Amino acid sequence: MIKVGIVGATGYTGVELLRLLAAHPEVNIQVVTSRSEAGTAVADLFPNLRGHLDLNYSTPDTGTLCACDLVFFATPNGIAMKLVPELLEAGVRVIDLAADFRLKDLKEWEKWYAMEHACPELVATAVYGLPEMNREAIKSARLVANPGCYPTAVQLGFLPLIKNDLIDMSNLIADAKSGVSGAGRKANVATLFCEAQENFKAYAVSGHRHLPEISQGLIAASGKDINLTFVPHLTPMIRGMHATLYAPLIKKNVDIQAVFEDYYKDECFVDVLPAGGHPETRSVSGANMCRLAVHQPEDSRNVVVLSVIDNLMKGAAGQAVQNFNIMFGLEETAGLVHIPVLP
Amino acid sequence: MIKVGIVGATGYTGVELLRLLAAHPEVNIQVVTSRSEAGTAVADLFPNLRGHLDLNYSTPDTGTLCACDLVFFATPNGIAMKLVPELLEAGVRVIDLAADFRLKDLKEWEKWYAMEHACPELVATAVYGLPEMNREAIKSARLVANPGCYPTAVQLGFLPLIKNDLIDMSNLIADAKSGVSGAGRKANVATLFCEAQENFKAYAVSGHRHLPEISQGLIAASGKDINLTFVPHLTPMIRGMHATLYAPLIKKNVDIQAVFEDYYKDECFVDVLPAGGHPETRSVSGANMCRLAVHQPEDSRNVVVLSVIDNLMKGAAGQAVQNFNIMFGLEETAGLVHIPVLP
Amino acid sequence: MIKVGIVGATGYTGVELLRLLAAHPEVNIQVVTSRSEAGTAVADLFPNLRGHLDLNYSTPDTGTLCACDLVFFATPNGIAMKLVPELLEAGVRVIDLAADFRLKDLKEWEKWYAMEHACPELVATAVYGLPEMNREAIKSARLVANPGCYPTAVQLGFLPLIKNDLIDMSNLIADAKSGVSGAGRKANVATLFCEAQENFKAYAVSGHRHLPEISQGLIAASGKDINLTFVPHLTPMIRGMHATLYAPLIKKNVDIQAVFEDYYKDECFVDVLPAGGHPETRSVSGANMCRLAVHQPEDSRNVVVLSVIDNLMKGAAGQAVQNFNIMFGLEETAGLVHIPVLP
Amino acid sequence: MIKVGIVGATGYTGVELLRLLAAHPEVNIQVVTSRSEAGTAVADLFPNLRGHLDLNYSTPDTGTLCACDLVFFATPNGIAMKLVPELLEAGVRVIDLAADFRLKDLKEWEKWYAMEHACPELVATAVYGLPEMNREAIKSARLVANPGCYPTAVQLGFLPLIKNDLIDMSNLIADAKSGVSGAGRKANVATLFCEAQENFKAYAVSGHRHLPEISQGLIAASGKDINLTFVPHLTPMIRGMHATLYAPLIKKNVDIQAVFEDYYKDECFVDVLPAGGHPETRSVSGANMCRLAVHQPEDSRNVVVLSVIDNLMKGAAGQAVQNFNIMFGLEETAGLVHIPVLP
Repeated sequence: MIKVGIVGATGYTGVELLRLLAAHPEVNIQVVTSRSEAGTAVADLFPNLRGHLDLNYSTPDTGTLCACDLVFFATPNGIAMKLVPELLEAGVRVIDLAADFRLKDLKEWEKWYAMEHACPELVATAVYGLPEMNREAIKSARLVANPGCYPTAVQLGFLPLIKNDLIDMSNLIADAKSGVSGAGRKANVATLFCEAQENFKAYAVSGHRHLPEISQGLIAASGKDINLTFVPHLTPMIRGMHATLYAPLIKKNVDIQAVFEDYYKDECFVDVLPAGGHPETRSVSGANMCRLAVHQPEDSRNVVVLSVIDNLMKGAAGQAVQNFNIMFGLEETAGLVHIPVLP
Repeated sequence: MIKVGIVGATGYTGVELLRLLAAHPEVNIQVVTSRSEAGTAVADLFPNLRGHLDLNYSTPDTGTLCACDLVFFATPNGIAMKLVPELLEAGVRVIDLAADFRLKDLKEWEKWYAMEHACPELVATAVYGLPEMNREAIKSARLVANPGCYPTAVQLGFLPLIKNDLIDMSNLIADAKSGVSGAGRKANVATLFCEAQENFKAYAVSGHRHLPEISQGLIAASGKDINLTFVPHLTPMIRGMHATLYAPLIKKNVDIQAVFEDYYKDECFVDVLPAGGHPETRSVSGANMCRLAVHQPEDSRNVVVLSVIDNLMKGAAGQAVQNFNIMFGLEETAGLVHIPVLP
Repeated sequence: MIKVGIVGATGYTGVELLRLLAAHPEVNIQVVTSRSEAGTAVADLFPNLRGHLDLNYSTPDTGTLCACDLVFFATPNGIAMKLVPELLEAGVRVIDLAADFRLKDLKEWEKWYAMEHACPELVATAVYGLPEMNREAIKSARLVANPGCYPTAVQLGFLPLIKNDLIDMSNLIADAKSGVSGAGRKANVATLFCEAQENFKAYAVSGHRHLPEISQGLIAASGKDINLTFVPHLTPMIRGMHATLYAPLIKKNVDIQAVFEDYYKDECFVDVLPAGGHPETRSVSGANMCRLAVHQPEDSRNVVVLSVIDNLMKGAAGQAVQNFNIMFGLEETAGLVHIPVLP
Repeated sequence: MIKVGIVGATGYTGVELLRLLAAHPEVNIQVVTSRSEAGTAVADLFPNLRGHLDLNYSTPDTGTLCACDLVFFATPNGIAMKLVPELLEAGVRVIDLAADFRLKDLKEWEKWYAMEHACPELVATAVYGLPEMNREAIKSARLVANPGCYPTAVQLGFLPLIKNDLIDMSNLIADAKSGVSGAGRKANVATLFCEAQENFKAYAVSGHRHLPEISQGLIAASGKDINLTFVPHLTPMIRGMHATLYAPLIKKNVDIQAVFEDYYKDECFVDVLPAGGHPETRSVSGANMCRLAVHQPEDSRNVVVLSVIDNLMKGAAGQAVQNFNIMFGLEETAGLVHIPVLP
């Protein structure tokens, strides 16, 4: 059994990670830390875990964490980077579900996250944990930066088009819609039930932290410069993310459906729908899965890609466990074979 | 008092029209028809109207309808066109909330609506009832084609950019999100609570009936050909529509915020938010209002317009009453001064 | 025009009160105070009010408030009691939407609200503002304690049974369900969208502040002691309250339907449904209305009353305006003729 | 592997059963029948099953069904009774998730279900499949009548009180609230998203089919006559059921919390919360679990029990699989170890 610790598992990403790890056949959860909830039973905070996880939160303690094989950080941005150097030093591997190690460009990172980086030297060595792009590097990684939810949905949708040189990279549009759980479990008027229910809105149109992360990935994949317009929206549901992607098509007479099917034929967590499909967010709810469909609307210059994930699963905790499986040489699907609950 | 009749008011557009007309200071509702509900009290079908409207549905009868000053059609597509000629003949004015008279190109209409038109000669004389485009023509119209919900939100968002020649018309994108009430009140598995709740999806990506309606309007406004990619989505809320519009900006150094504010400065039912705003669908819920914001994201080639309406109000019944007010020389705001209910 | 001030209108009761008063034909809103939002435009906090209310929040100031004819308190419990004496002294009338003056028994009040009362001498003179019980006293009241939401729904449902001596008062049960807006607009994990959506639960089963308020009213109405079991529940909707009331029937062969219809025949804001009806919360959404139905299930010892209100309207702001109308000799329906929005 | 067939799996109970059986370690799904969907891939109707179940619906065929070890009926009421005799004859065991074999009193059954019973002789031999009451009988049963959702939540809540003679059976009240999935997946205006969202209502107050089923169980458990008032309500969520139970307490100085904990100490699918708890429906979402709390409110004559289940799991498909496990001598938890998804 692999010994894991989780730092900061009091939010939605954290409880999802606990749901997955508590049932993972190769995992032994050693320690779950939280400063604010130290002493509380995890199952008192999250009643779905009653009977499945018999642990109390403890105060973060380097000694205990260093006894783990791997530590997950499900903390706010800026926490992991303070503890990671000591853990790596002690031989512990790390998966950070926050943004501390996602951007290679430190200036960009410090601009978007409005703080100074605590261990800039580790940023270059961190592996960006999108398995469909970086599986080989993840296998031997000591430190994995788990991708953001929007970047996961958007990159997986654009990749087959980019890798096959089918689109004009100078006018990419990603119109993305997220469930409210993406905003986290902090007390906040804007995400109260009575503010978010029966309401739909765009936000951060002038600029969002996930834009440089997406751009970094697409530039790396294409080797070209790109121009991306990214607009995130908040939709009145708990879970789910839908990215609608637009790009001008520059090659004609290509069977785009076949391109997508071929590109992802060996991937266990990407599902290309039959031609004409419209993936629903509920079809991946609670599962580590990205479902894609590709369309070329009549008379349109653009190819349209529809990409759905569960923002807490393939967009966060599920992908983290997928990375964990790869890092430890387990079956990539270990502990990740949930059938989505529908309705 | 102006005598009005309503044909087919058993759906969501119909009950909304009844809510507005029952409280309209210049209106006397003479007759509400429905074949399927003839004899039923309107307030038994729609309990919100108890105490506000004391009428029973009756079987459609030309004699009774011809005694009205104006008849609204809140029927499925293809019904109004069969009755309208006789009503116009009798001197009754008509507002059709369905699609029978929206498209000037009959071939297009017959392709998208999959039926033969019953009175093609009237199509040319019908006035497209978007007051912000066609107010003068509406004043003297005998037959008004009330716009679709998507076309209202999209056209109002693009108009200031088009009329000021600010965008490249060859790559317009409208990514639109609708509440479920847009799908109507018919028994249908796809819009059951358990299918639509906690779910988000695109639909009709390959082509939607509102695409030719939007194109017709934008071409008329610009005098140019256009290329529009339109993707509608279903979002888990009852009311509300959000259109996110993208267009490549071709003039630099223009104060786009000022362009929008100026363009709509005399409109009572279009509200341009201050720079940087993000309109929420709930801010127009139950009201005949379109709220707009315009953004130019850093490093993007595109201008982004956010446009929200209540699909049953400015997207249907509210706009119909606005047209009615214009046709009868009333204050344009008569019966339309609702403050949205929030939360 | 009657000059009114509102203290503390930054919550859901407050915005609802502003929606009503901004459109009230006899009201001039002089001042809206909030310490935390002083200087902010009211319409910036509540975008539904854009174009309908052009006022900024100001710091509470006795001088300005004393220039009003009446001041509404839409504050947390314990605030009004500190300011009310000075206002009454200055001849200003007051309606408190919080709980400061609801309970006549000071010890009970101090037990449930966990503070010392700041003006115990005024508690006896305050009139409990349930018009269907206390209309005459309200007419001449200087200080009205606006009832709680649960007490409104429950008392209106039990009153006809009590006043006609039809039930055994020693085993009353009120099983009540509230929308989430009853919990207010404060940042709070428990009422986040992701906590309250797709979830239903009882709360405060061991005791709730509204229990003594209901008991006080029912004892006053019956002149007898009572035993009431009251269980509130949280239901995943924004607005609406449904009370299901149970009481053993002690008189047989009574036409209970007729009893209810007769009891409320002159009330404009209580609607008794036809026999066999099941009132829906949405049928009163946004309206100052209580809809009731009464059932006697086959083989059951109990009579069952179903009572629905909009918790922010007849359960708070709407009832406050109704009290205001009564106090100033206006039509009781002035500013309160909204047709509920459905769907 | 045990060979199973499912008749009629096109509704919500059916898709839930498929989710459970597709992942059950001892089950081989041989055949899934549906007259209306014959030929359709199951995963085309229910996209959550893509990649997990590779079967098409087939027309019901006795030959194929008779080759199974057990057949589940997830059909509307009145279907199973026509096929069950032949299956039993062929040595196939049966679990009926509908109501055909739930009521021992045939007259009652025919009154509530408004049809004649097709195999009255089998009704007496059918075992009512509530394992916490009838585990021993289920072990050897050939035909199990899987309980209704309301009866499961209500009986499990009352049982410890009844078996310990703690309550007055002559005035039991069950106020129950169900998510919308309980109404099934048929096209129906009343359960459209726009009818059920933001709405709460009671229904069938004059009498509901589950009342005789509950009464039958409670009478059997107590050996006494009872008087039960049962009111079901519809609440705007997909899954979940909450029963709030009231009964006059007739013994004082009993530690009711201990009574409940002791009664269910060996049950794997009933969880008694610590004293003072309020179970949330989401805490059992997607899991075969009933969570209970028991309260004795200050000054009340009644004991109050709160009982939550997922209506599609412990209230339908989950309980069916639990019965299946018992019938085949498997671990009772086989295929039922899901951790609820939260949020």
